[in-house]
Amino acid sequence: MTSTVLDVLTIGNAIVDVISQIDDDFLDRHEFKKGVMTLIDEAQAEALYAATSARLEMSGGSAANTAVGIASLGGRAAFIGRVKDDRLGEAFSRDLRAAGVAFDTPVAVGGPPTGRSLVLVTPDAQRTMSTYLGACAELEQEDMDPTRIAGAEITYLEGYLWDREAAKIAFREAATTARAAGRKVAFTLSDAYCVARWRHEFLELIAGHVNVLFANETEILSLYETDELDEALIRVRGHCDIAAVTRSERGSVLLADGDTYYVPAEPVANVIDTTGAGDLYAAGVLYGLVTGRDMPTCGQLGAIAAAEAISHYGARPETPLKVLVSEKLGY
Amino acid sequence: MTSTVLDVLTIGNAIVDVISQIDDDFLDRHEFKKGVMTLIDEAQAEALYAATSARLEMSGGSAANTAVGIASLGGRAAFIGRVKDDRLGEAFSRDLRAAGVAFDTPVAVGGPPTGRSLVLVTPDAQRTMSTYLGACAELEQEDMDPTRIAGAEITYLEGYLWDREAAKIAFREAATTARAAGRKVAFTLSDAYCVARWRHEFLELIAGHVNVLFANETEILSLYETDELDEALIRVRGHCDIAAVTRSERGSVLLADGDTYYVPAEPVANVIDTTGAGDLYAAGVLYGLVTGRDMPTCGQLGAIAAAEAISHYGARPETPLKVLVSEKLGY
Repeated sequence: MTSTVLDVLTIGNAIVDVISQIDDDFLDRHEFKKGVMTLIDEAQAEALYAATSARLEMSGGSAANTAVGIASLGGRAAFIGRVKDDRLGEAFSRDLRAAGVAFDTPVAVGGPPTGRSLVLVTPDAQRTMSTYLGACAELEQEDMDPTRIAGAEITYLEGYLWDREAAKIAFREAATTARAAGRKVAFTLSDAYCVARWRHEFLELIAGHVNVLFANETEILSLYETDELDEALIRVRGHCDIAAVTRSERGSVLLADGDTYYVPAEPVANVIDTTGAGDLYAAGVLYGLVTGRDMPTCGQLGAIAAAEAISHYGARPETPLKVLVSEKLGY
Repeated sequence: MTSTVLDVLTIGNAIVDVISQIDDDFLDRHEFKKGVMTLIDEAQAEALYAATSARLEMSGGSAANTAVGIASLGGRAAFIGRVKDDRLGEAFSRDLRAAGVAFDTPVAVGGPPTGRSLVLVTPDAQRTMSTYLGACAELEQEDMDPTRIAGAEITYLEGYLWDREAAKIAFREAATTARAAGRKVAFTLSDAYCVARWRHEFLELIAGHVNVLFANETEILSLYETDELDEALIRVRGHCDIAAVTRSERGSVLLADGDTYYVPAEPVANVIDTTGAGDLYAAGVLYGLVTGRDMPTCGQLGAIAAAEAISHYGARPETPLKVLVSEKLGY
């Protein structure tokens, strides 16, 4: 096996977040389910955009945020995803490269515009997302650069990709390439409703392809259709090498080699916007794995990264995670 | 000595580059000396701005670029410098933080606007700069956060700072703090005309405070008022632990512990804009030093980083330097 050029390659929807502060009534009026991601079409996106004000535009996309987190921790990261050659697409590409992430997926010149997610943040810091995938739907098998994938220690894929048929095929192709090269595949369930849409296929994928699984509590309960976290943990243990389950302010649980590790959340003085908490948690754990840390330290790296993400608007770090890690862990 | 929280802290002028492509006639008409930096006042900046077109605005500043290079290589970097709370100042701060550099120098609320440099790029890819320092002039001793400085393995200072009296005092303070904490001080001569303005003080500073000196050939010849590089190299050897002298396409010369290392330049298919070449070279060498590499590897890291900077407009990397280093050096 040749040496790696990348620590982590992430593949996902290339999304610009349009963040608005709203109250709970707004969610009720528009019949949004708090905390989840709903797919919308272009017309709905425009109507919703018009209904909000004081918007903040920030590059996002779950797997892209994770790549930025890896770079911020000092790791070598790349992202594969599709934008269009429009204003949002240029902003997305510029932000990703500025953050130190390699990004060279060909840009779409025709077709739908760059994807965007209207992120509604309530006073309790929860975020509710309405996503118009746009150009993300154009991601296809030939974008899965085999050299990049074979040169990455871990290829990380988001469940959100499953919502488009071509992306799903590309997704399976990427996982197969990674494993054929002797590399690891990581996967995030992304969202409880995403799990509900694709439960059966996710279960097959995890058992057949996934080394490292990320989920929050709601997602893993949905995956195994149970109300008992312990039952879900028992079942996931046989399906992948490592599972990391986040539980908001109650920290996370990591399963590996028959052992279970409970890692507390990092205290945060003022939780502003939980967008990106899971994405950055995954970045911390993955960075721990590629740098050979033990499981409790991997969880702690995830907790430190997630705490940074929720202490401000937007999903990407404002303070370099590698500096925070040095301050908190002394290395 | 406590463990470090930062690999490199850089201190310098916080500058937004306004880049224009011009022909050689333009330089002649405005009586600019090609390749050097001239200080201008606000009125001159406005007149020059009006005389150019097709401008590209990009965050710059020599020491800030070096901090971005360190972060792009995977290192822990911070920057100290002053912007105003205006549009350019916000862009500068956002870009620096997005690149993974810690930056928390208080922003000026009154006084002159954020500094900018009009960078004129000729068809031979040389850059000629006219800099209006603006808010940079407000940098002062109390901005030299002793905790940051004592926690950084190397504090890196730019010669350009010498052009303002308060910054010069702050500069000496920072060097003293770093050395009192048992850390190293690095210094760049910045520009041949800057050396001419401050030769005597630079010589004193280097002999008294500087562990690692960066210069290009013209600058070091100017420092020792000689036409012979060999003579300059002999003289600098006694004045600091390590000296790194860049020679454009002829590579660089590193002096350390009585030894001399000649490192070739990294080949570049298409040289577009040499802005930032020296800044990124310094980032590579410094990153090599803090990660314990030998001198030839330090020089090679500098060469790889500089080659990336000159292959596009603007001083900051478009491809993650840590990925380039893995591709070229295999780690």
